[in-house]
Amino acid sequence: MFDLSTIAIDLFLVALGSILGAFLRFEILNTFNYKKISKHWLIFTINIISCFLLGLLVALDKRLTTLVYSQLLLFIGVGFLGSFSTFSSFIWEVFDHWKNDDKSQSLLIIASSILGGFVFLLFGYHLGNG
Amino acid sequence: MFDLSTIAIDLFLVALGSILGAFLRFEILNTFNYKKISKHWLIFTINIISCFLLGLLVALDKRLTTLVYSQLLLFIGVGFLGSFSTFSSFIWEVFDHWKNDDKSQSLLIIASSILGGFVFLLFGYHLGNG
Repeated sequence: MFDLSTIAIDLFLVALGSILGAFLRFEILNTFNYKKISKHWLIFTINIISCFLLGLLVALDKRLTTLVYSQLLLFIGVGFLGSFSTFSSFIWEVFDHWKNDDKSQSLLIIASSILGGFVFLLFGYHLGNG
Repeated sequence: MFDLSTIAIDLFLVALGSILGAFLRFEILNTFNYKKISKHWLIFTINIISCFLLGLLVALDKRLTTLVYSQLLLFIGVGFLGSFSTFSSFIWEVFDHWKNDDKSQSLLIIASSILGGFVFLLFGYHLGNG
């Protein structure tokens, strides 16, 4: 049988993490857009920070108890990072530059996001395992 | 001066959207993982659906009043889609296959996600403008 209190705690952790992630993303985009930093570089930065933290989180697996780790995974991994990082806005920025005939910028956003995300995730993963 | 009630409504819309997005992503990953569908194809599907809906949402701009559109953008764009779609899990899947020496699968995940996201966003955008 399902343990309702465990399910409620799990959902609460995901909900709390997702609200914090969305608020932080919203706040960063609002604050730095006023300072005239291009939105696609802000989204790039949010996404590579998320990748770094996810790499670090996955590497912590063996250092924590199963219960603590599974709750941290729900709160930070599924909730916070799933919500802080965004794929749709990343593709929107690629699309927006493409339709405005700035194709080289579109390709730069794709290449730097994939490479940056990969490298920062690797960095977090090795830091956590070190 | 800031209008606190407007800020509260904005934050409520982002929070509600982000919880719904995170719960739906969590539920899809849990449900279909049991059915042995690879996690990277589930994340791919979640991300391209998000791109389609974002394209559709952006195209609705001229059909709605400024207030309704700005609130819809906060609830669906910033909250729901920002939280439903995920960049960090996408890069994790690329990294995971790469470190397990399944490099062709890593490249396939990258190519299909970027191309799929772009095409589905374009599809949503043209459907909304049609």
